[in-house]
Amino acid sequence: MFCMIMQADATLPNFIIMLMDDMGYGDLGVFGEPNKETPNLDRMAREGALLTDFYTANPLCSPSRAALLSGRLPIRNGFYTDNAHARNAYTPQDIVGGIQDDEILIPELLQKAGYNSKIVGKWHLGHQPQFLPLKHGFDEWFGAPNCHFGPYNNNKTTPNIPVYRNDKMVGRYYEGAYNIDRATGESNLTLFYEALEFISKPRPKDQPFFLYWAPDSTHAPVYSSKKFLGSSRRGIYGDAVRDLDAGVGAILNQLTALGIANNTLVFFTSDNGAAIVSKTHGGSNGPFLCGKETTFEGGLHEPGIAWWPGTIPAGTISHQSATVMDYMATLADFAGLPLPSDRQLDSMSLRQALTNGSEVKRPVYYYRGNELMAVRYGLYKAHLWTWTNGMDEFNHGINFCPGEEVEGVTTHNQTDHSSQPIIFHLGRDPGEKYPLGVRSAEYKAVWADIQVIVDAHKKGLKPAKPQLNYCDNAVMNWAPPGCKELNACLPVPKSTLKKCVWPH
Amino acid sequence: MFCMIMQADATLPNFIIMLMDDMGYGDLGVFGEPNKETPNLDRMAREGALLTDFYTANPLCSPSRAALLSGRLPIRNGFYTDNAHARNAYTPQDIVGGIQDDEILIPELLQKAGYNSKIVGKWHLGHQPQFLPLKHGFDEWFGAPNCHFGPYNNNKTTPNIPVYRNDKMVGRYYEGAYNIDRATGESNLTLFYEALEFISKPRPKDQPFFLYWAPDSTHAPVYSSKKFLGSSRRGIYGDAVRDLDAGVGAILNQLTALGIANNTLVFFTSDNGAAIVSKTHGGSNGPFLCGKETTFEGGLHEPGIAWWPGTIPAGTISHQSATVMDYMATLADFAGLPLPSDRQLDSMSLRQALTNGSEVKRPVYYYRGNELMAVRYGLYKAHLWTWTNGMDEFNHGINFCPGEEVEGVTTHNQTDHSSQPIIFHLGRDPGEKYPLGVRSAEYKAVWADIQVIVDAHKKGLKPAKPQLNYCDNAVMNWAPPGCKELNACLPVPKSTLKKCVWPH
Ligand SMILES: [Ca+2]
Ligand SMILES: [Ca+2]
Repeated sequence: MFCMIMQADATLPNFIIMLMDDMGYGDLGVFGEPNKETPNLDRMAREGALLTDFYTANPLCSPSRAALLSGRLPIRNGFYTDNAHARNAYTPQDIVGGIQDDEILIPELLQKAGYNSKIVGKWHLGHQPQFLPLKHGFDEWFGAPNCHFGPYNNNKTTPNIPVYRNDKMVGRYYEGAYNIDRATGESNLTLFYEALEFISKPRPKDQPFFLYWAPDSTHAPVYSSKKFLGSSRRGIYGDAVRDLDAGVGAILNQLTALGIANNTLVFFTSDNGAAIVSKTHGGSNGPFLCGKETTFEGGLHEPGIAWWPGTIPAGTISHQSATVMDYMATLADFAGLPLPSDRQLDSMSLRQALTNGSEVKRPVYYYRGNELMAVRYGLYKAHLWTWTNGMDEFNHGINFCPGEEVEGVTTHNQTDHSSQPIIFHLGRDPGEKYPLGVRSAEYKAVWADIQVIVDAHKKGLKPAKPQLNYCDNAVMNWAPPGCKELNACLPVPKSTLKKCVWPH
Repeated sequence: MFCMIMQADATLPNFIIMLMDDMGYGDLGVFGEPNKETPNLDRMAREGALLTDFYTANPLCSPSRAALLSGRLPIRNGFYTDNAHARNAYTPQDIVGGIQDDEILIPELLQKAGYNSKIVGKWHLGHQPQFLPLKHGFDEWFGAPNCHFGPYNNNKTTPNIPVYRNDKMVGRYYEGAYNIDRATGESNLTLFYEALEFISKPRPKDQPFFLYWAPDSTHAPVYSSKKFLGSSRRGIYGDAVRDLDAGVGAILNQLTALGIANNTLVFFTSDNGAAIVSKTHGGSNGPFLCGKETTFEGGLHEPGIAWWPGTIPAGTISHQSATVMDYMATLADFAGLPLPSDRQLDSMSLRQALTNGSEVKRPVYYYRGNELMAVRYGLYKAHLWTWTNGMDEFNHGINFCPGEEVEGVTTHNQTDHSSQPIIFHLGRDPGEKYPLGVRSAEYKAVWADIQVIVDAHKKGLKPAKPQLNYCDNAVMNWAPPGCKELNACLPVPKSTLKKCVWPH
């Protein structure tokens, strides 16, 4: 009885998830970026916990974000394709699918405890009206449903991406107030003001908030606000990182100024590895192999930071194998909420890891589309399949592993190793260069362990219906909700439903 | 007059140079090692200055160490070979040469201000009696003249390396008290106790000290003391790093306990990049290309830390282009000593960079043997020559760039680019993967600048007589000073003077 009263009276903690776009592990000073241009993130890590073994759920935006918010692998929540084997897929403007109503997202879960939730930035879980954030638990939104690609051809064959305020569009990228000009630094990077405003606004007494801060300025075409343009030794990409780092600092400082830092858990990470395919315009995956689009460490091993003064001891270093899908169980744990019991979750609370330094041995799964490409267990990683991209693309200059070549590992054909995986020890060999000898006792013992895990995983798996199979020009952002009030509706072309093409 | 009195009365600062062996930039948590196993070094950086653009003078032990102590490039102090073009050379047991009497080493300079100097660890500036530390300014020595290679064949064709206390041998590695057993952790890693003892010992009032701490346990065959054996996620190499990190912590703590931290400048770095040729038994160069033996960033870009509570502001990050050769001018500056004016030094005081955050634009030269391979100026680096190693060696599994391949850059023949260098922007491209287009305005402007620097450097260069040309079995450590007292003199074979073979 006493406990129940305590619980009811206790102020629930606020939550912030800062999710960067295509930022790599090696882009933060604290994780080894040699120019050391992220003082705020480095401080955040110093004052909180560094998660050294932190992963995203997929090497591409949409599936990664769907997994983060649902606490489930893309194969379970439908954010994959089976148009072809082991293909990366996302939500371009002509995608038909999106997040399904029966998925329970973090803000929906937190609603039960009265949380006020906002997403600032990129959504990427489908842009048809039924898929948008306010239909899936968020109370507020400022941002866009897709990447900031563009500008397009005067909205003739492709509309510019709409910018939403809550459930209505308020304009489009590259137009009017939401212009992005990479050369002058004119940009909509008001995203951190939106965050500041949300965390600062008056709320009913003790109503906690959940902020999902998802700026995408480090995604190609990379841009930076005027203040930071030209300020980095790394060029435009570094300018964008510095810009975001300043935003992180402003948000943390605001929490402190408001006196709520001690009651706010802040996570920082990225949705997938750096797009080193973009060469000097992309980020860095530090010592890890390859990058975005691949299931090598460079594709999924992310910078992980957690910050909560007074609850997470300053200077914590956690080697807990963890993923973005763990946010759901962690937030539920701290909010005293039960997790959904009617479905398979891929989520474990990190509460003990963050507050007590405990560590649980558990697998990490690396998927590419409909294929389980690799599994990490302890410090070992077994590649069941390898693929960078096809020789056709590669010969046209698309290289997911520029300057890197590991024989039999960075393969240009989809290579099945499932009967005899390529196994790396990520402690001795974080760069995945030196496979264990298949005849070694170490290999045999590890593979015996991992084989059990793979078999159990596959046996228990019920793949959802794939949401990223069909494309149709008619579903593009021609006439998003709110376009009438703006006089900005575009004519919708005839429907031409077809299977999407996913080249890699 | 007042100034002079002040100077005479002021207590001169103590100096410590911690020089690691084959440790890479990427081996420290603070520089991005993903297992974050160097809490003491990370703290040292946090409390002092991180030098992000810090270099050694050569990608190999002996030339690097000779340069550090003399403040001069190996080409000027004789620590190179011209037996063949652009070859790495060092001081194996049969080397005839060594450091020349007319070189002025740091301890010789500091003698003029009354410093008490000790070297703990590896010397590597020649092992014939005339070349040893006590002949070149050091008051004390505990350590060995060569690497801890061995054990050899019962001293039949090769003697085990002697261990010296001051000017006399006291035993040999792999024998008796100085055994090294990699499997059990038995080892002579009393090196940090030697350091502690030296900094703690009573001295005449106000006599300052200079400690040159040069453990070589991270050089192959890598070893760790029992306490740390098996403790690292990285295996034996990580165990050795943790062992040394603990030593660093013990030394800094001792300075604090003695109340002399505020009067002691401590530098930390490594003699060359990680030997990634050793694969999982070598270290990491983080995001940099290739490693030891090469003039890519992985060969010479080192972890740089400086620590001096009260003088170097905590949390300083300096982008000053600097090298191990700058230690000499920096120490002289803080000790109020003039530098030798009768010779060309490659040394600049880092006092302003460390205390005021100032930054001076200046070139960094990358030599391999007798050839200037590359020059860095500002953020640009121009490769005048490229070479990893020859195809013969490479085909036998000797690979200085495992898993890395940059077309036209990681070449297996010595390639002359001096009329049209390969130029990288190290800010945007620290991994040296994306050469500037030779027709770009950027390329032309940069090369015009660097060409002037190269021409001036070559014009002003007076190469010393090369010391690393001749080898002779007779000069091996058969009968080092002190062997008689120990009854440990070995018969000296007949002299067979020949040119040393330097394969890469
Ligand atoms: Ca992304
Ligand atoms: Ca060395």
